[in-house]
Amino acid sequence: MIRPGDRVVILLEDEETRFFAEVSEGKVLATHYGNLIMSSLVGMEYGSFVSLGFKGAYVLKPSLLDGVLSLKRSTQIVYPKDIAFITLNLDIKDGDIVYEAGTGTGVMTSVLSRMVGSSGRVVTYEKRSDFVRRARENVAALGKIDRVTFFPEDIENCNEENVADSFFLDVPDPLAVMGRAVSTLKGSGRICVLCPTTNQVQESIRRLGELGVVDIQMWEIMARNYKTNPDRLRPEDRMVGHTAYLVFGVKIKRRSRS
Amino acid sequence: MIRPGDRVVILLEDEETRFFAEVSEGKVLATHYGNLIMSSLVGMEYGSFVSLGFKGAYVLKPSLLDGVLSLKRSTQIVYPKDIAFITLNLDIKDGDIVYEAGTGTGVMTSVLSRMVGSSGRVVTYEKRSDFVRRARENVAALGKIDRVTFFPEDIENCNEENVADSFFLDVPDPLAVMGRAVSTLKGSGRICVLCPTTNQVQESIRRLGELGVVDIQMWEIMARNYKTNPDRLRPEDRMVGHTAYLVFGVKIKRRSRS
Amino acid sequence: MIRPGDRVVILLEDEETRFFAEVSEGKVLATHYGNLIMSSLVGMEYGSFVSLGFKGAYVLKPSLLDGVLSLKRSTQIVYPKDIAFITLNLDIKDGDIVYEAGTGTGVMTSVLSRMVGSSGRVVTYEKRSDFVRRARENVAALGKIDRVTFFPEDIENCNEENVADSFFLDVPDPLAVMGRAVSTLKGSGRICVLCPTTNQVQESIRRLGELGVVDIQMWEIMARNYKTNPDRLRPEDRMVGHTAYLVFGVKIKRRSRS
Amino acid sequence: MIRPGDRVVILLEDEETRFFAEVSEGKVLATHYGNLIMSSLVGMEYGSFVSLGFKGAYVLKPSLLDGVLSLKRSTQIVYPKDIAFITLNLDIKDGDIVYEAGTGTGVMTSVLSRMVGSSGRVVTYEKRSDFVRRARENVAALGKIDRVTFFPEDIENCNEENVADSFFLDVPDPLAVMGRAVSTLKGSGRICVLCPTTNQVQESIRRLGELGVVDIQMWEIMARNYKTNPDRLRPEDRMVGHTAYLVFGVKIKRRSRS
Repeated sequence: MIRPGDRVVILLEDEETRFFAEVSEGKVLATHYGNLIMSSLVGMEYGSFVSLGFKGAYVLKPSLLDGVLSLKRSTQIVYPKDIAFITLNLDIKDGDIVYEAGTGTGVMTSVLSRMVGSSGRVVTYEKRSDFVRRARENVAALGKIDRVTFFPEDIENCNEENVADSFFLDVPDPLAVMGRAVSTLKGSGRICVLCPTTNQVQESIRRLGELGVVDIQMWEIMARNYKTNPDRLRPEDRMVGHTAYLVFGVKIKRRSRS
Repeated sequence: MIRPGDRVVILLEDEETRFFAEVSEGKVLATHYGNLIMSSLVGMEYGSFVSLGFKGAYVLKPSLLDGVLSLKRSTQIVYPKDIAFITLNLDIKDGDIVYEAGTGTGVMTSVLSRMVGSSGRVVTYEKRSDFVRRARENVAALGKIDRVTFFPEDIENCNEENVADSFFLDVPDPLAVMGRAVSTLKGSGRICVLCPTTNQVQESIRRLGELGVVDIQMWEIMARNYKTNPDRLRPEDRMVGHTAYLVFGVKIKRRSRS
Repeated sequence: MIRPGDRVVILLEDEETRFFAEVSEGKVLATHYGNLIMSSLVGMEYGSFVSLGFKGAYVLKPSLLDGVLSLKRSTQIVYPKDIAFITLNLDIKDGDIVYEAGTGTGVMTSVLSRMVGSSGRVVTYEKRSDFVRRARENVAALGKIDRVTFFPEDIENCNEENVADSFFLDVPDPLAVMGRAVSTLKGSGRICVLCPTTNQVQESIRRLGELGVVDIQMWEIMARNYKTNPDRLRPEDRMVGHTAYLVFGVKIKRRSRS
Repeated sequence: MIRPGDRVVILLEDEETRFFAEVSEGKVLATHYGNLIMSSLVGMEYGSFVSLGFKGAYVLKPSLLDGVLSLKRSTQIVYPKDIAFITLNLDIKDGDIVYEAGTGTGVMTSVLSRMVGSSGRVVTYEKRSDFVRRARENVAALGKIDRVTFFPEDIENCNEENVADSFFLDVPDPLAVMGRAVSTLKGSGRICVLCPTTNQVQESIRRLGELGVVDIQMWEIMARNYKTNPDRLRPEDRMVGHTAYLVFGVKIKRRSRS
């Protein structure tokens, strides 16, 4: 049942236009079908149809992805197709300690915080202080902020070693901080480096090898969206051609030389 | 620290061959580098290197995906590239009630059970009783079996209505049970139908529309794996060309006619 | 050497902007670098650099694709990625008799006319007379119009049988004329049907089988374009997600029943 | 009509198995349906059905691609998906002078020789003499060998300048000979460099820029093959994930400094 303060998705009957809005007293959502007094939704079931003049709209519960797409962004976000593949390959689970640099818009921070359970922890570094404020707001809205520790500084300042189950590294210059990132990992901990270019992939793979990371894998994910007219099924004319290459590896303990 | 009974991944030094094995008394793992007495690993840190004659191997903590790939399979499993995208788009989260049909090998059941948290629940139907036994074993090994209710029967026998936050439908004939599946969903609940063929996608989209499901989307995910020689970076020569089309939708409440 | 009347491509020095223009007396090409008096190019070598104020431009010989992209279009054209694959799989070669319906903008007609050699022939049908005029102009500009016979009518009006080495079928409703198209083919002749939707592919495959076409294959071609900064190599952010499915087959002689 | 000496494709009725064979006296083709006396095909029409015991086969005219797939190979061949895109983007046409290095198995040489017309010419270099003999045989079988000049030596030995309309460069180390290749091109001539790795692409793009090549583009072509059961339409489970990256550019005249 919808309560005051809930965020909802309003999907117009044509299924073309959607709004992300809060159910709050006095708030009016203007649509080209007509106005919706948001407080009128209180007490309704999710999935209900509301009339808007001659037409109407569906009131839906927002998903994490709806939230992500509604965010105020400081910078490029990680794409849904990549988010899902990354968390699966980093093997994020209940109780994990996950490190991240940089925090960016806080999308991955939110996703990670939802997946580590109440006993897990996300530790995130971001050296651009202007990003941190917005990221906190976004994690508060989309994730579990009580499971997150924000460090508004360069990951290079981190002194922790051998503590993290996994590390998500998404910074402009990953080479410069890769050694530090790997140091935070426990033995058998997993790292994902997000690289926009093939040049950066090559350098990252080389550097990870030097740092004692094994089982290095590199993937790119292509997600193709279809038009869903059942009598004329076909992919959309345009699709996302590239977001980033995903480099994964597993940290090993250095062999001691005798 | 590795304890008796743990399952581990043994990755040979060449990084080409891996084994999934249990650390148990008296067990010996035969590799082409030499034999590994599994109980000798007790007390080691994950990520350690162990000698095997002139060469050696890394002892790694298995991820969910390592576990999935080690499974005894009754039937085709959902691919990692699809698993991740499905759970994100079904918006699986702490406390969710998730329905599934059929259980199959139990891979998605395991993944879902890990994502619903201690207060969530997975309810899974499988009419082939020979599949159910193996699926239970697999969920016990990979997931959180205490969060799962197994029904060794056709989803058609389910009477629940308006209870599920999401439904994952992966059966040979989804058309036959789609009405039943949608009935279990709450308003604004999400369904994913996994369809191998375009014919089945077309019929599923048509049927979902009749059943009051909106915001229907269809995706296919292509995951490209690269060879990770940093001096000769290139995609693998062969890749998976197709697994399944992923159809998603959101249930709405039927408008009452007056 | 550039002569009066030649068409040329003017590529500005930034390599971002290009123009397709004719070298004719009195013609001036306006660019944001400055004006180019087209007749001043007469006598230059292709590949020359011409100054335009402080910056300049390259004068290039237009390729067929440059020509295609410069066309006035009546309707959707076949994409380069598909053009090339179609002609190879239809096995177009010197001396071939190739049938086409519909002519459309004349792009495939032009390509085919260039590939059949001086002893070959392209026969093309288009029932929309408004398309035919423009198609003739386009074939005159890009192809070998003396090798082409235009029929401004429905392919259904064609009476020829057993004459064509190959048939390119690209009309809104291919099912309606597929029997006629196959009739024009010689034994072992090849057909390509261009289908935008999976529904049409399914129906086309079914119908081709009924018509005694064997070795039916279906392909889709994805062409990924990269940004060519050698220090930041990466695919373009967006790409073409879909143009059409390409269905191919080979006609066999009907077995006579005794 | 089939004549003695013709090569034909025998496609068994199941459409799963095909043979590439010559119609010659005394030759017998053994199939699992039964034996086919090849000389019995003389006088038949292409596309005919021949009985083989209880079942039968279709007798088809081989396409260029059938020929390519039947070749004895010395080395990796260029894939059909790439062949077609390359020739279109190199703008191969009647009367062109096309250079190639290396000849390899002679597949591209054959394709190019078919496209330059009777007034065109293909000049091909191959430093491995063991490749040249086989390539000659293949071009004799598939292409127009009278239009081809073979040089069994390194392209570095070529002294020609400003003669070629296009150049197809497919050698293990293209960097070493790229300058020489570009020298053979006329102003506005086009080059294609086939690169298996991203590292080689980066270096090739850099080097082409130094050599006065503009309008550099890079593409990769993905061709997806479908299973053509019209009631169960779906892509094949496995596909080719990578063959090569295709780098294209246009040569300009160097600006003379005054």
